[in-house]
Amino acid sequence: MHRSLVLYLPPEDPQAFREYYESTHIPLFKSVPGLRAFRYSFNVSAPEGESPYVAVSEAEWDDAQAYGEALSTPEGRKSLADIRKYATGGAVVVDYPIEEA
Amino acid sequence: MHRSLVLYLPPEDPQAFREYYESTHIPLFKSVPGLRAFRYSFNVSAPEGESPYVAVSEAEWDDAQAYGEALSTPEGRKSLADIRKYATGGAVVVDYPIEEA
Repeated sequence: MHRSLVLYLPPEDPQAFREYYESTHIPLFKSVPGLRAFRYSFNVSAPEGESPYVAVSEAEWDDAQAYGEALSTPEGRKSLADIRKYATGGAVVVDYPIEEA
Repeated sequence: MHRSLVLYLPPEDPQAFREYYESTHIPLFKSVPGLRAFRYSFNVSAPEGESPYVAVSEAEWDDAQAYGEALSTPEGRKSLADIRKYATGGAVVVDYPIEEA
């Protein structure tokens, strides 16, 4: 399995951020070919201090190649570019292969 | 399900970091009561630019209460404190409830 995460820093307008995210970004992202699972949360905490991120999404792909291919589709390119439209505080996008440890 | 993530910034000594992590931290963390799943990767990429994080671990708990209780056990407290011993570049620890979207 291959994981991609998007970690969102506090946006300028939290309500507009969430509305755009749920009404526009999620349907767009879920149209990306090869997506196996998608989860997200706007309820991010930290065990010590404050979380630097206000929202996190996590997606699953078969492997790194499938993720790379997904990002090169029109839907994938559009989804990645879409993040800039609503993540006005910035976002960190990372991906990694995962196995149960 | 409740997710906890640890996102590791580049440590001073990558080899010592990985050795301590795999030989000492993982066994300690896996002893924490209530842990349902644990995965990690030292192979973190970014679709655009460079990943700010060199390693990521993800864990699963039944819910936020179970995670809170886990952190308050001796093993949980020891695990959280242990991070400072090897994550010489710093680490971001966050948690959030997740459901399939």
